[in-house]
Amino acid sequence: MKDEDEILELMQRWRQAVSDGDVARLLPLMADDVVFLAPGQPTLRGRAAFEAHLRAALQTVRLEPAADLQELTVAGDFAYCWNEAVLTVTPLGQSTSMRLTGADLTILRREPDRRWVVFRAASLLVPSA
Amino acid sequence: MKDEDEILELMQRWRQAVSDGDVARLLPLMADDVVFLAPGQPTLRGRAAFEAHLRAALQTVRLEPAADLQELTVAGDFAYCWNEAVLTVTPLGQSTSMRLTGADLTILRREPDRRWVVFRAASLLVPSA
Repeated sequence: MKDEDEILELMQRWRQAVSDGDVARLLPLMADDVVFLAPGQPTLRGRAAFEAHLRAALQTVRLEPAADLQELTVAGDFAYCWNEAVLTVTPLGQSTSMRLTGADLTILRREPDRRWVVFRAASLLVPSA
Repeated sequence: MKDEDEILELMQRWRQAVSDGDVARLLPLMADDVVFLAPGQPTLRGRAAFEAHLRAALQTVRLEPAADLQELTVAGDFAYCWNEAVLTVTPLGQSTSMRLTGADLTILRREPDRRWVVFRAASLLVPSA
């Protein structure tokens, strides 16, 4: 499979795992030393920090990400992509949702076993007006 | 000069040009098809869009960026870096400032003439509490 197709499939599997609230399925899709950046939140350094943050969030909300790819470029063992994205956040047990909108910018890395993983991710989503 | 040193110098010149409000000095430091992403703001596509946005901002405020580099990696003709950053925003004619804090994530590209330029930039800064 072409690198670009592998990365698109990875990002699709990522969003599906988040929608399913399946953290165990999500963790192998990121590098062990992943870094997540988000506005107004402390930087999350490493898979364990991300896991703790996401598991805490999923105690109270359901997350449904959607993304409209704007660009995907592969450069050797690195790649980057960015999306215009929407995250639907629904408190557990409620029927009304909040929508976050904005861009994301992700840097991916090819691991020694050739798999692509998420390496640096900036999510710029904020509650939409 | 090493690529990493060239990029560090570029980012330093970038911050100095912003602090000086010198848009003409800033524009050659970015690709013609640059993209800027920021939370709660429309995506800025292209140098002209960035220029219009910044010139409008500089009509009303002075901007003083500072950055603490966390990582800089070169991969062929692309590179990326990210910072923990602070932007001091001072309305013109006033002495009190607002501080924005957060991370930024920048992808740089090497142009055909070998110069590095800013290519994709995500600024995650928000008003600090």
